Amino acid sequence: MKVLITGIDGYSGWPLALHLLARGHDVSGIDNLVTRKRVKEVGSWSATPIPTMPRRQAAVQELTGKELRFYKGDLCDYDFVRTVLEKERPDSIVHLAEQRSAPYSMIDVHHAVTTQVENLTGTLHLIYAIKEACPDAHLVKMGTMGEYGTPNTDIPEGFFEVEFHGRKDYLPYPRNAGSWYHWSKVFDSGDVMLAAKIFNLRATDVMQGVIYGVRTAEITDDRLLTRFDFDETWGTALNRFIAQAVLGLPITPYGKGEQKRGFLALEDSMQSLRLAVENPASPGEYRVFNQFDAAYSVNELADRVARIATELGLHPTIEHPPDPRVEAEQHYYNPIHEHLPALGYRRSRELDEVVREIFHDLLRYRRRLEARKHVLAATVQWRVPDSRGLLETRNVPGATTVPAPVGPTVSHSAHTPA
Amino acid sequence: MKVLITGIDGYSGWPLALHLLARGHDVSGIDNLVTRKRVKEVGSWSATPIPTMPRRQAAVQELTGKELRFYKGDLCDYDFVRTVLEKERPDSIVHLAEQRSAPYSMIDVHHAVTTQVENLTGTLHLIYAIKEACPDAHLVKMGTMGEYGTPNTDIPEGFFEVEFHGRKDYLPYPRNAGSWYHWSKVFDSGDVMLAAKIFNLRATDVMQGVIYGVRTAEITDDRLLTRFDFDETWGTALNRFIAQAVLGLPITPYGKGEQKRGFLALEDSMQSLRLAVENPASPGEYRVFNQFDAAYSVNELADRVARIATELGLHPTIEHPPDPRVEAEQHYYNPIHEHLPALGYRRSRELDEVVREIFHDLLRYRRRLEARKHVLAATVQWRVPDSRGLLETRNVPGATTVPAPVGPTVSHSAHTPA
Repeated sequence: MKVLITGIDGYSGWPLALHLLARGHDVSGIDNLVTRKRVKEVGSWSATPIPTMPRRQAAVQELTGKELRFYKGDLCDYDFVRTVLEKERPDSIVHLAEQRSAPYSMIDVHHAVTTQVENLTGTLHLIYAIKEACPDAHLVKMGTMGEYGTPNTDIPEGFFEVEFHGRKDYLPYPRNAGSWYHWSKVFDSGDVMLAAKIFNLRATDVMQGVIYGVRTAEITDDRLLTRFDFDETWGTALNRFIAQAVLGLPITPYGKGEQKRGFLALEDSMQSLRLAVENPASPGEYRVFNQFDAAYSVNELADRVARIATELGLHPTIEHPPDPRVEAEQHYYNPIHEHLPALGYRRSRELDEVVREIFHDLLRYRRRLEARKHVLAATVQWRVPDSRGLLETRNVPGATTVPAPVGPTVSHSAHTPA
Repeated sequence: MKVLITGIDGYSGWPLALHLLARGHDVSGIDNLVTRKRVKEVGSWSATPIPTMPRRQAAVQELTGKELRFYKGDLCDYDFVRTVLEKERPDSIVHLAEQRSAPYSMIDVHHAVTTQVENLTGTLHLIYAIKEACPDAHLVKMGTMGEYGTPNTDIPEGFFEVEFHGRKDYLPYPRNAGSWYHWSKVFDSGDVMLAAKIFNLRATDVMQGVIYGVRTAEITDDRLLTRFDFDETWGTALNRFIAQAVLGLPITPYGKGEQKRGFLALEDSMQSLRLAVENPASPGEYRVFNQFDAAYSVNELADRVARIATELGLHPTIEHPPDPRVEAEQHYYNPIHEHLPALGYRRSRELDEVVREIFHDLLRYRRRLEARKHVLAATVQWRVPDSRGLLETRNVPGATTVPAPVGPTVSHSAHTPA
């Protein structure tokens, strides 16, 4: 099949390109390379040294003999998107090109607006460009399990039977996101759902859990490495914990650490996306996959990382800084995930094995971690602290100090300076 | 109280300013005057001749002796928003400054993006400017009943008890909008809900029904008239039907005409917004009002307009053009609306009386309707027609003709040329 990946230079986009090429698909990609810049903006970099896109393409050519077409450009430029889609006419588009960091979206008003506007605009542009250039193409859109929040019920795959005042309907499960970023993903989902209805778009909406891992089967050479973010803004929980253990810093699950989330190995995210691509939705169908493998509490992951670190001769410690996020620290969590197993999904990597593999690579790149050690502390406070009488606004150009709002007490979140 | 109205030059914004001034409140407003331009863009104008903002201010001064402060500017300019809020430090902000036309949002990709990006950016800018300049201010945000769609259950006011797999939670009622515009309002609601949680924002979210009417008690002079849109892009259903009857054109409920919606007289919308302002939400509270008075089918309204037109010596006819929208033409509709009555809301105007009043004014301005008669036909097709083999893309700069998607048949909507 012809597959176009938006965000092909990213953590998931790059290994997905390799994975699909290895399975015999024809792969092209779009990226504006902005994640590389934004990781620098917060003072960090990828733990793995990643080549430029031309070098990545050359490495693919040399190592696999396969061509990987790349279009540098921005999804916010409609003419660019339409031109690429007209040229490629892909069977499937995997849409990963979004600002993907919740903490980044919480920095200040400008980061909030940038996150929501870019993500929405890119998705709307893709929707219309598909309608005009390749209306039979299947859109596989990356969402997040965070769109649902953490309700006190099971979480269905997108839709459920609502009962209210004795009458029933089959409707989207309520979305209840916890950051500007997570809301931006809810917004995209709404637009894609409408596009299926009005433009007959084939759509798969992937509510993905938190990804971990540094390698996939296709990453057989250092030139094929994907990026690996370990800072508080761009790194995911488990990846960050391992970086902390490697550096001899405390592993830091936030708050009580009882927050549960769905997790998935990078390899199995690739497997899942490929299954979606190879089993397209029907025209006008909007289907939702809860894409994760197992739910763990943040404490369970921290303990797992600490145990394996100890086996490797490290001396890990665990600390619980106050949670800068707005999330329940103890809650029920049981999302359903049956759609992907029905298409043949089977777990291919075990957690312990992947954790060891990440340790192996991070120990190799320990010096790159050391050089950016200062970015491992949480710097973005999501809510206004209201127990100190004053509200400090950080990271806001021209920030002022204003009186805190009068109101009911919310739990205090200490401010951790960078 | 000090009240700031965003969108003060608009259909609701202007009479709200007059209404609040008459009740002794201190009123200021923001507007970028873009609706005037956009109504021209589709070839239309207001049936009522509306003065410029400086003339409106002068008329208020002369007729009431009261000052009305006006700031011309755009909510998409954060420094402007913050500066105005710092200067005014209002107790309440009524946020009406949004692109408010669903058909306008459906014209093409650029109108879709403009609608969603402007509405989201303006709301996010307001949220942050309140946090920084006047964190105790109460935000009254205009949403729409269309956020809910038309589910087969009653519609609660924002939240309801969800039961799924034997467990319960109290969550937002599922949103299921039917246009890019309506989704933009859902997005705003999500952001305001989060702002209440993280910034302790006081927030009232108004899910308003369709407004009708041309006058309020304070419009005692032609210089105080508000705008009245009658074209297919900017006019609301009942207002448009009366304009059609005045012009001797068929009254055109779409499709079967059994679509039901909640309706509200302009006067009672002002009453409702004032009640929200005078009874602010608590810090951190996000409350939702379903703001309408009664639900009618589009046919009921068309019949009502025809009956009163006949009494006035006109010869109305009713036609049912195919529905260009994506909506169920027959459905259950029973939204709950108890929050405003609990604050003292009572219907102040009867439908027949308001319909007669609109006829009275439109007959006076018949020549202005005649001059823009051509804009009364539906020109924006919301979905891709799929029964003609070709998809015509209209209003798209550089539009092409592309093959229609292969897929299941959706009901055919004929294309009504302008």
